[in-house]
Amino acid sequence: MRNIALTVSYDGTNFSGWQIQQGLRTVQGEIENALEKIHKQKTSVAGSGRTDAGVHALGQVASFFSPVDSIPAENYLPALNSILPKDVRILDSRQVAEDFHPRFSATSRTYRYFFHCGVPFAHETGYCWQLHFHPDLNRLNKMSEFLHGEKDFATFTAAGDKSESTFRFVESASFFPLGNKIVFEITANAFLWKMIRSIVGTMMDIEKKKLPPQEFLRILESANRKNAGQTAPPHGLFLYRISYDGIKRH
Amino acid sequence: MRNIALTVSYDGTNFSGWQIQQGLRTVQGEIENALEKIHKQKTSVAGSGRTDAGVHALGQVASFFSPVDSIPAENYLPALNSILPKDVRILDSRQVAEDFHPRFSATSRTYRYFFHCGVPFAHETGYCWQLHFHPDLNRLNKMSEFLHGEKDFATFTAAGDKSESTFRFVESASFFPLGNKIVFEITANAFLWKMIRSIVGTMMDIEKKKLPPQEFLRILESANRKNAGQTAPPHGLFLYRISYDGIKRH
Repeated sequence: MRNIALTVSYDGTNFSGWQIQQGLRTVQGEIENALEKIHKQKTSVAGSGRTDAGVHALGQVASFFSPVDSIPAENYLPALNSILPKDVRILDSRQVAEDFHPRFSATSRTYRYFFHCGVPFAHETGYCWQLHFHPDLNRLNKMSEFLHGEKDFATFTAAGDKSESTFRFVESASFFPLGNKIVFEITANAFLWKMIRSIVGTMMDIEKKKLPPQEFLRILESANRKNAGQTAPPHGLFLYRISYDGIKRH
Repeated sequence: MRNIALTVSYDGTNFSGWQIQQGLRTVQGEIENALEKIHKQKTSVAGSGRTDAGVHALGQVASFFSPVDSIPAENYLPALNSILPKDVRILDSRQVAEDFHPRFSATSRTYRYFFHCGVPFAHETGYCWQLHFHPDLNRLNKMSEFLHGEKDFATFTAAGDKSESTFRFVESASFFPLGNKIVFEITANAFLWKMIRSIVGTMMDIEKKKLPPQEFLRILESANRKNAGQTAPPHGLFLYRISYDGIKRH
């Protein structure tokens, strides 16, 4: 059976996250429903990882084994988009190696968190965190540098995370302006549950109080989640890109 | 009584347009409801003009006479935003001259129509028209030039328009790329009902068939709406800016 990989964008606003949960609307559930209509049989879909309720995606990667030979891999893009609701869009479909797995083959994950200083346009309110102050990007980038490398991120996980280790390797993390927004982009081998939202919320707490950036390092090194600040809201967070063997897909 | 002007952004997706209609959700209705909560009495709001169901706004202008003296004009911004639903955002509030009227004082209106070639990201599907071909911007800009000046736009109005004249003065009209989108921006003294969506839809019909740009001029000059093409969908259209005495507000 052919292994088909999908690049998936979704608007997380009206989803209970990526992963199928009984009785809830999920992205994985919508894609499996659409594939069942195409294949006339149940087809399991794997993703690169879960995203929480309300979190968006520009480049989630998913895959499935096609039970039919008659559909060219590229044709899953228009076929799925014609069935899926508008808040899930397939951006790419292609055949991949049989042993490709969107989660286990991934070498790194990149997320972007969007901020807006002041009042955002109405159609942007669901896709950024509105800040009521103007943060200093230089100070935020000093905090970001403390994230680089292999670190214990125990401070920035959530109760209920089932990871065996709280160590993760952060390749890059920085703030930059983009149009009328500020973006925090972070790439790591993997993330703990709610790690990015906890990092972002803690940084904003420090910046709002104008505490020295070293305060962030102190909190990180404490490896104690009691020291973390607020958890930033999910609607500012986008899964941006999954990398495989260093190949970026967009 | 002080005359207060508001700059208003709205996401038109879940609105039956700007203007109050019995039993329907409208932007004007939401703002009047919010002002009634603040003033403890009914307050009428005037707008620069109607927008249709599904059309968005980045810079609609509205005004009202404040029945209370205790609220500084600038404070209507946070006060209204704390009451209004997230799909209406007040971007500016200020006191204006008593004889200012958002419709009758306006000297020109600017709209933007957004296109996306190929599959848009999921969170952008409601804010652009997805094109299944790549239009040639040079050819589209040749068509746009035919719009400039005072013309009879009878071709591009809709049955039910109650305007006395079908002549309008177009100051500027052009296509340009913006990020991953194509934008059509048009400024005129005023517009006929559905005029922009009819112009845009007709241009795309011509471009898709690769007919010469002069075909657009022929259709325009026929002054007969039977010759117009399709009407572009409302969700690509944004009221961008209202100008007063040549002063642009953003």
